[in-house]
Amino acid sequence: MEIRPNLDAQSETALYRQLGSYLQDLIRSGELAAGDRLPPTRELAGQLGLNRTTVSAAYDLLESEGLIKGEVGRGSYVCGSPEPRAEKMNWSRTLTASPSTPAGTAASGTINFSSSRPSEAMFPLEEFRECCREVLENANLRTLMQLGSPGGYEPLRRYLLARAAEQGIARDSDDILITNGCQQALDLLRRALIRTGDKVALEEPVYPGLKNLLLEAGAELIGVPVGADGVDLPALQRALDAGAKVVILTPSFQNPTGASISAAHRATICGMIRTAGAALIENDIYSDLAYANGDVPPRLKQLDANVILMGSFSKIAFPGMRVGWILAPRPVIARATELKQLADLHTDHLSQAFLLRFAESGKLAAHQAKVVAAGKEKLRAVDEACRRYLGDCSWRLPAGGMNLWVELPAGVDAVSLRGLAQQAGIDYLPGRYFSISRSLDSGLRLSFAGLDPDEIRRGIEILGALVRQTAESRNSRAAQPALALV
Amino acid sequence: MEIRPNLDAQSETALYRQLGSYLQDLIRSGELAAGDRLPPTRELAGQLGLNRTTVSAAYDLLESEGLIKGEVGRGSYVCGSPEPRAEKMNWSRTLTASPSTPAGTAASGTINFSSSRPSEAMFPLEEFRECCREVLENANLRTLMQLGSPGGYEPLRRYLLARAAEQGIARDSDDILITNGCQQALDLLRRALIRTGDKVALEEPVYPGLKNLLLEAGAELIGVPVGADGVDLPALQRALDAGAKVVILTPSFQNPTGASISAAHRATICGMIRTAGAALIENDIYSDLAYANGDVPPRLKQLDANVILMGSFSKIAFPGMRVGWILAPRPVIARATELKQLADLHTDHLSQAFLLRFAESGKLAAHQAKVVAAGKEKLRAVDEACRRYLGDCSWRLPAGGMNLWVELPAGVDAVSLRGLAQQAGIDYLPGRYFSISRSLDSGLRLSFAGLDPDEIRRGIEILGALVRQTAESRNSRAAQPALALV
Repeated sequence: MEIRPNLDAQSETALYRQLGSYLQDLIRSGELAAGDRLPPTRELAGQLGLNRTTVSAAYDLLESEGLIKGEVGRGSYVCGSPEPRAEKMNWSRTLTASPSTPAGTAASGTINFSSSRPSEAMFPLEEFRECCREVLENANLRTLMQLGSPGGYEPLRRYLLARAAEQGIARDSDDILITNGCQQALDLLRRALIRTGDKVALEEPVYPGLKNLLLEAGAELIGVPVGADGVDLPALQRALDAGAKVVILTPSFQNPTGASISAAHRATICGMIRTAGAALIENDIYSDLAYANGDVPPRLKQLDANVILMGSFSKIAFPGMRVGWILAPRPVIARATELKQLADLHTDHLSQAFLLRFAESGKLAAHQAKVVAAGKEKLRAVDEACRRYLGDCSWRLPAGGMNLWVELPAGVDAVSLRGLAQQAGIDYLPGRYFSISRSLDSGLRLSFAGLDPDEIRRGIEILGALVRQTAESRNSRAAQPALALV
Repeated sequence: MEIRPNLDAQSETALYRQLGSYLQDLIRSGELAAGDRLPPTRELAGQLGLNRTTVSAAYDLLESEGLIKGEVGRGSYVCGSPEPRAEKMNWSRTLTASPSTPAGTAASGTINFSSSRPSEAMFPLEEFRECCREVLENANLRTLMQLGSPGGYEPLRRYLLARAAEQGIARDSDDILITNGCQQALDLLRRALIRTGDKVALEEPVYPGLKNLLLEAGAELIGVPVGADGVDLPALQRALDAGAKVVILTPSFQNPTGASISAAHRATICGMIRTAGAALIENDIYSDLAYANGDVPPRLKQLDANVILMGSFSKIAFPGMRVGWILAPRPVIARATELKQLADLHTDHLSQAFLLRFAESGKLAAHQAKVVAAGKEKLRAVDEACRRYLGDCSWRLPAGGMNLWVELPAGVDAVSLRGLAQQAGIDYLPGRYFSISRSLDSGLRLSFAGLDPDEIRRGIEILGALVRQTAESRNSRAAQPALALV
């Protein structure tokens, strides 16, 4: 019999569970009978366009419930009667449920606009190797290989704190904690500040890794719409009035919109949040990627000592090395450091030492200058291509960062369009991934920083053509008189 | 006025909060008046034997409540009246509370029995450097520096899975997730399996990093006593009958007791837990450190496919590099991988690649052979020194691992003794840190693996002398007739 599940990659239920429960229904209903052989995982994965691991996990779920049985070299068979429960764990009952939306990966050869990451073609391998060699030859390598302190590698902590003090970001009342990139900074601050049921205000659209993390923790999310100059102030005030205890903002080059909060609004926002007594977390991972000329507005942390700032090397250097930090008032860092020890003892020593050497030697600054220069080119390509090919859409050019938000014309839906886009050799993330409470199906995120200007132009040209086709076919359908409903 | 707080390092309240609330009382009661200057943090830290950060965090708490005010270069002063709340966050009200017990660090020069870690003197620096160089010269360095997959570096995943399959530990139904050492494996499994209020059975005494992690998560802990051959079976059955949903065991060379579960008991335990339908997590980080001759009993994972196994390079190689793993049935790995992505995207790539090269090249096996040979010497030193110097105590020699548990004679308390021990130049962790529900004040953990045989002998000699003195002074006090209570 044919296996044709109706899977929804945007559902809150993981794909392997959806597939598992579809197959379970087939078995329970008798459509798959005792002794029937299930297709090999590789074959079914190919048929359904799924990762093989997803299919295997679904089969394991069924096996754990005694519905099928795998035999080495022969495949999986539907069982006559369920195996005794005691033999195998019923994992679907034991495991906590996931509120996350899986994102899927792009096929190779695709022009991939779906990941907010730097271009690896620009990584300065020789310069980086030199830094690694210096660290490895150093006599303190032995200490680096030994267990360290939860707060982080002390020379890196001191370097980052001193640099932040020079820039007027850190005060005497601040301290720093090294984390595994900004994602772990979010996770630790979540544990330090947010209890189940607490209200948290986030920009909407918002980075899915932030939304999903808070949903896992049982927080109640309040989406604050993002406009041309960042979060909408009246909506933010309403969120505070509704009892938001924590506010998380990305003031510069927000992911996914690329929007920045204007200098004028920054002080107002700090004041509003301070008055409400809420904690303010500033995601500062993109602000060094400013491509436009002119002044960069101050960080919120410069305006208010209470702000908790998250930084990272991942966007300005190499995301494969997981090093970020939290800069915050000492009581916050003391608590976050306790939680860091429980989470994973401390961040990997070698990467901390390598990146410190890379920064101290001036090589990071040199690399960053090149990245910013290339970013200007990329942004110019985005601007030109959008003007030329996305006439039916609306968008707002960011002044830096990695992401651009595109609004599709009425009637074109970003999720359906994505299937066509993938077939045509491009990929992006549909708006739905970034949604908190509003439908964002007419929007999508183009992450352009990992691509070169030529790929950007070709990708946007393909996208534009698909949008036009879809809008036209929809219009021609809409033009046909509808039959009476009977 | 003198500042003499009564701090309790074993309390569930962090030290900086205890100090903060003591100072708050002094201010509120008027013993510290408006305009009074608090001692500089460095000075007070010295007086109280605290870390300076602890004192700074306490001052910040007071400042956040408007009770004191820091002036650059002049120190901190008690305020006339509390500052307006809106100006500074009240962090003590905002931050989640910590149920953890801080451990403190040993002064340098101390013979430090307090950390369960390998000896850095044995790290094979040249061999490791060679592996790093090979990885850094390789053309795929660029890919390593780019964002990767939540499951881990694919070549390392495949290597570990193949090795585990060869050893009969992994089955076709298993998959692997790379984590930041075993501590993160615990944290992810906690999120995957344990909801607030769930009952979890643990060995008692138990590693504090495990206990504290579960307390933070709101689990209800059931301690199962550890005897000569591991967990007590009737007590384990009672824990299962009481509704333990998850059981976490370290079958070989348990931390802190050094005890191992006998081969005979292992199958029984798997059967008991399977029948109860509970999930079983096997902490397998010490089992490669077997110093005695003879067969090592099978891992629980070899006896039961449902078992979730945690492994790590930290104990057999270098804990400064944070690489461990979870080997488990695929549905567990699928869920844990979702959570890993939310926790920190993925584990550092370079360390994964370095350790893979170290393992594949055979250098890890060579290093491990040396560590085991040295471990035999260390264990012999432990045995001799305990027999010679700890006649008043009882202990049970482990057959491997890093830790030994010592029971003090009646009337000698491990917490008080620790103060004397630190003055005499040794340190250890008192039993209280490892307690779940029973008083363990008469016990202590000696972590011997990081020391050389000579240090072990000297350290245990010092400990033995202190125990004798304390027991004698107590006996002479006890011999004096007690006055009538009036």
